[in-house]
Amino acid sequence: MTHPSAPRKRPGGRTARTGQAVHEAVRALLAERGQGGFTGRDVAERAGVHEATIYRRWGSLDTLLLDVAVTVSKLNEDSPLPDTGTLRGDLLAWAGAMAADLDRPEGLGLLRSVLAVRASDADRSGQVTDFVYARAALIQRVLDRARERGEPVPELTTLLERLVAPLYFRAIFTYRQLDEGLPELVDNALAAAVRE
Amino acid sequence: MTHPSAPRKRPGGRTARTGQAVHEAVRALLAERGQGGFTGRDVAERAGVHEATIYRRWGSLDTLLLDVAVTVSKLNEDSPLPDTGTLRGDLLAWAGAMAADLDRPEGLGLLRSVLAVRASDADRSGQVTDFVYARAALIQRVLDRARERGEPVPELTTLLERLVAPLYFRAIFTYRQLDEGLPELVDNALAAAVRE
Repeated sequence: MTHPSAPRKRPGGRTARTGQAVHEAVRALLAERGQGGFTGRDVAERAGVHEATIYRRWGSLDTLLLDVAVTVSKLNEDSPLPDTGTLRGDLLAWAGAMAADLDRPEGLGLLRSVLAVRASDADRSGQVTDFVYARAALIQRVLDRARERGEPVPELTTLLERLVAPLYFRAIFTYRQLDEGLPELVDNALAAAVRE
Repeated sequence: MTHPSAPRKRPGGRTARTGQAVHEAVRALLAERGQGGFTGRDVAERAGVHEATIYRRWGSLDTLLLDVAVTVSKLNEDSPLPDTGTLRGDLLAWAGAMAADLDRPEGLGLLRSVLAVRASDADRSGQVTDFVYARAALIQRVLDRARERGEPVPELTTLLERLVAPLYFRAIFTYRQLDEGLPELVDNALAAAVRE
């Protein structure tokens, strides 16, 4: 018998398979229709599960979207980092990948899911933190590697505010191309670099 | 008889009074409970209108919140600008006011309402553009005034990405105080200034 509060502790079980099918359905629907273009029922049909299963496990479509966003963000954390030999090259590659990701309906939809989280919802605020920490952990490794090579590096928060924040801002307010002037963004982040 | 598609053309009429009462109720509830802490029924009770009136006019609570956000943004457009005599002083005052605004439940709730807009919803995408254009128009006047004084000024988009984007990022991801290091943000925006 499985304890009802611990279904996620069985990674090979039916709960895990359902979770994976539902996540894949969300990503496919985001890619095809964008955020707001599908319902919980559409996800259930695509994943081949009962709609009630989705609401029992996630509570709402918004919570499911946030769960997918955090999971994708953590998966990216394990993906190979750009390794060009210089911090500038690594940051340019990373910014280019992020701009391309935010230019796709799936990437933009996941960002919007995170941004939409209600401030008053403490559980979900924690997930927003997870989302940005996963990205921050990735870029921290790029910074650590540069520091080991003896390169001057900016602080993590400065880098996030000079490189990630503008890309999110462009993705949301769509006043210019996402990948416009990426070298200028990177150079501005590097202008805050100090040798440690 | 009022034409059903043109109720907003009578600014002194009952429709306008209802709209104002509903907007004031939303702002009060945002300030007291934050976004997500109240329903359309709460707004109706506070404003002294029927709940059905709200859904007939705005369709959903999300759309109402977005309408309030755009209206507040446009009202701010008409408010007096900081006038300290230097661009740096004006931008510091403006950034300080924006940080204080985003630190209040009402300001943060309105930003989240805008950020949550579904990409697939064309009507509401237009409102998101209105929201950021109202803020951009305000800061453009600060830049114009500095240019007339002969000061070097950054481009508007650079200023938005170096000053507004980081503040929004802090408000959403809450990893540091909103008003931390505002002079550094302003100086970084000014580093891109050119004399025209």
